[in-house]
Amino acid sequence: MTAEIISIGDELLIGQVVNTNASWMAQQLHALGISIRQIVAISDDKEEIRTALDNAFSRTDLILVTGGLGPTRDDITKHTLCEYFGARLVIHEPSLEIIRKFFAARGLGLTEHNRSQAEVPDNCIPILNYHGTAPGMWFEKEGKILISMPGVPFEMEAMMENQILPRLSAKDNNLVVVHKTVQTHGEGESILMEMIRDWEDALPGNFRLAYLPQPGIVRLRLTAFGADKESVASQIESQIASLRRIIPSLIFGYGNETMEEVVGKLLISKHATLSTAESCTGGYLAHLITSVPGASEYFAGSVIAYANQVKHDLLGVSEDSLRNFGAVSEQVVREMAEGARKRFGTDYALSTSGIAGPDGGTPEKPVGLVWVCLATPQQTISKKFMFGEHRGRNIRRTALEALNLLRLQLL
Amino acid sequence: MTAEIISIGDELLIGQVVNTNASWMAQQLHALGISIRQIVAISDDKEEIRTALDNAFSRTDLILVTGGLGPTRDDITKHTLCEYFGARLVIHEPSLEIIRKFFAARGLGLTEHNRSQAEVPDNCIPILNYHGTAPGMWFEKEGKILISMPGVPFEMEAMMENQILPRLSAKDNNLVVVHKTVQTHGEGESILMEMIRDWEDALPGNFRLAYLPQPGIVRLRLTAFGADKESVASQIESQIASLRRIIPSLIFGYGNETMEEVVGKLLISKHATLSTAESCTGGYLAHLITSVPGASEYFAGSVIAYANQVKHDLLGVSEDSLRNFGAVSEQVVREMAEGARKRFGTDYALSTSGIAGPDGGTPEKPVGLVWVCLATPQQTISKKFMFGEHRGRNIRRTALEALNLLRLQLL
Repeated sequence: MTAEIISIGDELLIGQVVNTNASWMAQQLHALGISIRQIVAISDDKEEIRTALDNAFSRTDLILVTGGLGPTRDDITKHTLCEYFGARLVIHEPSLEIIRKFFAARGLGLTEHNRSQAEVPDNCIPILNYHGTAPGMWFEKEGKILISMPGVPFEMEAMMENQILPRLSAKDNNLVVVHKTVQTHGEGESILMEMIRDWEDALPGNFRLAYLPQPGIVRLRLTAFGADKESVASQIESQIASLRRIIPSLIFGYGNETMEEVVGKLLISKHATLSTAESCTGGYLAHLITSVPGASEYFAGSVIAYANQVKHDLLGVSEDSLRNFGAVSEQVVREMAEGARKRFGTDYALSTSGIAGPDGGTPEKPVGLVWVCLATPQQTISKKFMFGEHRGRNIRRTALEALNLLRLQLL
Repeated sequence: MTAEIISIGDELLIGQVVNTNASWMAQQLHALGISIRQIVAISDDKEEIRTALDNAFSRTDLILVTGGLGPTRDDITKHTLCEYFGARLVIHEPSLEIIRKFFAARGLGLTEHNRSQAEVPDNCIPILNYHGTAPGMWFEKEGKILISMPGVPFEMEAMMENQILPRLSAKDNNLVVVHKTVQTHGEGESILMEMIRDWEDALPGNFRLAYLPQPGIVRLRLTAFGADKESVASQIESQIASLRRIIPSLIFGYGNETMEEVVGKLLISKHATLSTAESCTGGYLAHLITSVPGASEYFAGSVIAYANQVKHDLLGVSEDSLRNFGAVSEQVVREMAEGARKRFGTDYALSTSGIAGPDGGTPEKPVGLVWVCLATPQQTISKKFMFGEHRGRNIRRTALEALNLLRLQLL
């Protein structure tokens, strides 16, 4: 089955609201094996809506519409659909009951205007809205389905989860689609592509591969189509097993797993503790680590040593090293990591020092130069990187490299 | 002028990526007075792309396309456009130079494949990509414009800001639209709305007001239409001056100014220095502060004291206080701020301690309970907050409250 999503609302077209509804719905439909052909956002305009409906019906079996069901004057979806399907509006008693309770709970009676919210076209199946006042509508016409829902995210999500998705999944689907995302770190998109080219070329015809790059991370999304969910899923697993043999150290996780979650799990499994000493990352590394619930189990703390004096006073970096090598140097980043490990009494300590930019670079130490270091019970490992000119991305990439250094050590 | 946005990429249609590019672009175009008729997301498929182009050209004067320009095989936008406009690919030397430098900076030579990234259709104006390897393309055909850009947000945004928007704004527009965004902190959307209701009701007919809430911040976007840019802009300024009289302490900035930038400017103007001592924010507060270029001028550093022992050892919090009041207490957060101020020798110090969640709450100290404290040369000010259950939002709101406490003190 293929579907199309039509999002109605001027706020989408002026960029005031990001269309998270559409991606949420796409995820849910996709999980049922329904392919989305198109997502379209249009304004609260009768003609635009009619045209979008005509186009969508010509292409797909299932149309999901959100928005334009509210009580205000610019909400015209219901009347437009009523005309489009040649229906007349009738009161839907169960919806009226919900609306009555909704206002009663707020100590208010029902106006004529509120009452009209319970009206639905007489040829649709009404969908109850337990979280708001506008019911959804399910139309069927010549074997095709159109579902209209409110644009308020939690109202729409509750309708989808409890009423619409169960009904849709009861319909037969011919084709099963299975995805798996592989998270990689360590090589950019084009190098990675060269590394896995033979594997990609040998993928069976029912496979698709997409590269999704972010600063410091390339996600690989593997999609496979087939008739049977289990066999397609096992095909995917076997292809990922081959991929893992080619780039074992680049793969750090699957699905939506983050680097900091993976490192956290490894630390817990080893009963190991961690601290950090940060200069150029300025707390971002500690923030990533502590954004994982339960991080207090393995994370003791950090010294953000922005000023050189702090590197000396709190981390014990020697004044000689700072003077002779400068704050951004292998010597200093090593003393920072070792100092943090001692100071916090942790098994591991990570440190960072670099020129995040956009200013502060010199010919010898340009913006983007970064040192990252890991102190372990056995050794101290430092690595140098040359990133770009963008402060935010340099900070992010530095933190990822630090976490990855620890990840590889813990494996 | 009307426009349409076409976002290309399978990841959008399975809901893996939210289409933030489209809303960002819509905002920018809207600010130029260009109305968006439609935003459409389609797959990396030649036929889908051709159909979308045909449809868009039949409706609008300007088409902005993102996605499908990467180096990998699923990126087919460039070849499809080349065919669509009956062009042939030629090397664009300035883009090749950027790509060469891009790989050279990473110590890599250029493969034939990398080189092909610099190819563009011979009938387009190439748009330089200073942040990646795929150039953008500007086509003109029968008075209509099509612009193709990479889907990587920061590459697209830099192209738009520096090259595309200036060119587009040079074209004539009949109606001038002026926006100004007011950043507020301290009250939620509904309370704020009550506070400024009379002002909002009295806005002239050519004004629009939008509330854009985020965790801890409500942005107010004021839009005014008119024939003359200067007079519309001065109308906006005078309305904002009235607004400032109603909510003087809630407004912390304008446009895209962040709380951390505002605080940074205030510190610089007072020649004052800052340090932090963080428990529940786990480095996020220091990260916000150091995300501002030049923060080293006023920020000395931070102790992230996740473990209680660290609060004692590095910040001098007394063991009695920790035992008697617990880590999340007014007493401890005050000792943390005072300890940091002393330890780092700064004029000001901020501290945070709370239950970020989702676990770790008790009936007396539930998830969302947060203490924030500011130590100044004259006094120590602590504030208690009760936030919600979402870890990420609790961390963000705590950091904003801490910065705002300092902002109000510095004013």
